[in-house]
Amino acid sequence: MDPGGIIPHMTILRHNAPMSKTNNTDLPIGIFDSGVGGLTVLKAIRTELPKEDLVYLGDTARLPYGTKSPISIERYATQATAKLQEQGIKLLVVACNTASAVALDALQQQMSPLPVIGVVDPGATAAVKARAGGSHLVLATEATVRLRAYHEAILSRDPGAIVREQACEMLVSLAEEGWTDGDIAERIIRRYLEEASDDGFTPDSIILGCTHFPLLKDAIRAVAVDEVTLVDSASTTAAFVRETLEADGACHRSDTAGSLRFLATDGATRFARVGGHFLGEALAPDDVELVDL
Amino acid sequence: MDPGGIIPHMTILRHNAPMSKTNNTDLPIGIFDSGVGGLTVLKAIRTELPKEDLVYLGDTARLPYGTKSPISIERYATQATAKLQEQGIKLLVVACNTASAVALDALQQQMSPLPVIGVVDPGATAAVKARAGGSHLVLATEATVRLRAYHEAILSRDPGAIVREQACEMLVSLAEEGWTDGDIAERIIRRYLEEASDDGFTPDSIILGCTHFPLLKDAIRAVAVDEVTLVDSASTTAAFVRETLEADGACHRSDTAGSLRFLATDGATRFARVGGHFLGEALAPDDVELVDL
Repeated sequence: MDPGGIIPHMTILRHNAPMSKTNNTDLPIGIFDSGVGGLTVLKAIRTELPKEDLVYLGDTARLPYGTKSPISIERYATQATAKLQEQGIKLLVVACNTASAVALDALQQQMSPLPVIGVVDPGATAAVKARAGGSHLVLATEATVRLRAYHEAILSRDPGAIVREQACEMLVSLAEEGWTDGDIAERIIRRYLEEASDDGFTPDSIILGCTHFPLLKDAIRAVAVDEVTLVDSASTTAAFVRETLEADGACHRSDTAGSLRFLATDGATRFARVGGHFLGEALAPDDVELVDL
Repeated sequence: MDPGGIIPHMTILRHNAPMSKTNNTDLPIGIFDSGVGGLTVLKAIRTELPKEDLVYLGDTARLPYGTKSPISIERYATQATAKLQEQGIKLLVVACNTASAVALDALQQQMSPLPVIGVVDPGATAAVKARAGGSHLVLATEATVRLRAYHEAILSRDPGAIVREQACEMLVSLAEEGWTDGDIAERIIRRYLEEASDDGFTPDSIILGCTHFPLLKDAIRAVAVDEVTLVDSASTTAAFVRETLEADGACHRSDTAGSLRFLATDGATRFARVGGHFLGEALAPDDVELVDL
């Protein structure tokens, strides 16, 4: 793969709009989430594409999305996308499962012709790859479950699969509070897993269908039977971002490490404190720019 | 007390503004909360003042307030108040502890000369009445704790009191999820109580400083030592509303039971389902009118 290669339609776009920043391979990748959970996806993208500049927007003023109505979620997501478009981005990652489930079509239309990548499809791809023809339990927010987004995404890839979705709002709070291991986390997880399998359903894979849940991986591992595969969409999403940029010849051509920018709609202090857990490294409130949507 | 009595300044206001609905004793009482938790306060007001019409606005599109910044909370609260003013109300109850702690002064200015009653002052009054000179543990949201609102309100009434405030975000989720009793609720409560008293602090009272927490009363009672008094501001707030209306001669003069109206900024279905827990009776989605702020 030649990262400098430009496929024909990109050349044409450049030719027609030479001043447009939107076709600039040097623009950052935009990553949007309802809060700080999407930093797990940012982290995976940084590992996969260390030279890319990344700009992250967390809509912390209006989180959580998972209990809101589809109309509100779509409105919030389009506003957040417009803010990232203002900054100039070459690709949008919707790191929030709920927003991916509800608003991906609307955001693809808004960003067109630039690519938009949600986390539901990569998660479904990873699950099917791990356990073809298997039974999948999706742990997610109320809104994601209501829309049956994973159900559709998995069955379209593997019609023989069985999919069950379980809303787990308390896991969001556990991750936000930082109570990610120990007795309380395990009891809450056990209760949800029991609720999902009270009729004897035994999943081959558990899909972490909310960006908060990778923080609870060890606790879920401790509760679930050994044979279950845990599926986290972060790394699959990051791989898909790389493939998309490579196919478009839109990878950053610098040799230095990419920059990081963090935007939030509320509470820089809380963003830095809670976000640090998700990013796996310390963040200072000064690292976070407040923006209005 | 003569509920029909009108004190002089009300007479003057009426005379000066005979068409103004804002002085009309027949107008409803407005009750504002970030979500459905304030329905516990509505319930107490209905018990105290069964003839009054009540209009409740839950800002469900932007809940929870407890983790947001003071600037956002004040903006949301003033928008919600403006919506209730549009409907015509004679008194505003701020049933949300966080909004009471952050925005009461701004809302009093906005509603002037009509009265605004928050839940922090009545809660403080009830705590001091129950355990004068005692030690109080306030369980509340992050924002309420950060502002030390109960601390100030209690010490201004009882300078000899000792006040400790503990942020308990997980209790909000427990109440929303309906997991209000049993092992998980008690373990989470125990963890917060232990955190608050790791230096040997032993409270005489525990103040339920969030409208979600009265739902957890039994679980808190099961964990706390028998000598502790649990203080819930709902009934004290309702009594204060009655006293204020009586003093202003603004009580409703009908002999029939008052009406109830429910407004929400998002998710009528969820409002009805979760709100039913708080109200203690079934609500249907059709009972809830969606409004934009």
